[in-house]
Amino acid sequence: MNSSRCAACKHLRRRCPSDCIFSPYFPSNDPRRFAYVHKIYGASNVGKILHDLPVNLRAEAAESLFKEASYRIKYPVYGCVGQITMLHQQIQNAECQLARIRARIA
Amino acid sequence: MNSSRCAACKHLRRRCPSDCIFSPYFPSNDPRRFAYVHKIYGASNVGKILHDLPVNLRAEAAESLFKEASYRIKYPVYGCVGQITMLHQQIQNAECQLARIRARIA
Repeated sequence: MNSSRCAACKHLRRRCPSDCIFSPYFPSNDPRRFAYVHKIYGASNVGKILHDLPVNLRAEAAESLFKEASYRIKYPVYGCVGQITMLHQQIQNAECQLARIRARIA
Repeated sequence: MNSSRCAACKHLRRRCPSDCIFSPYFPSNDPRRFAYVHKIYGASNVGKILHDLPVNLRAEAAESLFKEASYRIKYPVYGCVGQITMLHQQIQNAECQLARIRARIA
């Protein structure tokens, strides 16, 4: 057991076991990171998602969960999906511009 | 209480109250829709997100939660965030093409 608990175990007010699933990805100096994923997914779902992945992919998964949770907290209706819709729109605009310029050249 | 339960109440094996928070957005003929958000967020987090929104925004929120959950189930490491990264890349490519064509014109 670590003498200093990770952000997740601090948040959950429990001891931080040496094999804590959260500890490598939710350091104690960034409590907001765990608070966000806890609020949106719940600790047990985050733990399950991390647990089901190979160890070398867990850091990236924790980061993407944090980003998604941040979007959902900032934009509770659309979350990440709003961002995707907006980017699709931008791509369509860029493609329209390209088509117009190509037509002008031709 | 409804005689036919919504997909959420069926999934949770409970009675579907007349003021069920899930019922309007998780119809019984689409059980996968609730199963997905339940797996990723948990019923209580989905209920909380919907509850905290004005009624007229809940359908869109349920839809975006379903889309995000679908991405996370399909791409457990990156979820929606992988899609956003890919779209950013596409926009950059389109902008590079535009810049090249404009330079050629000039």
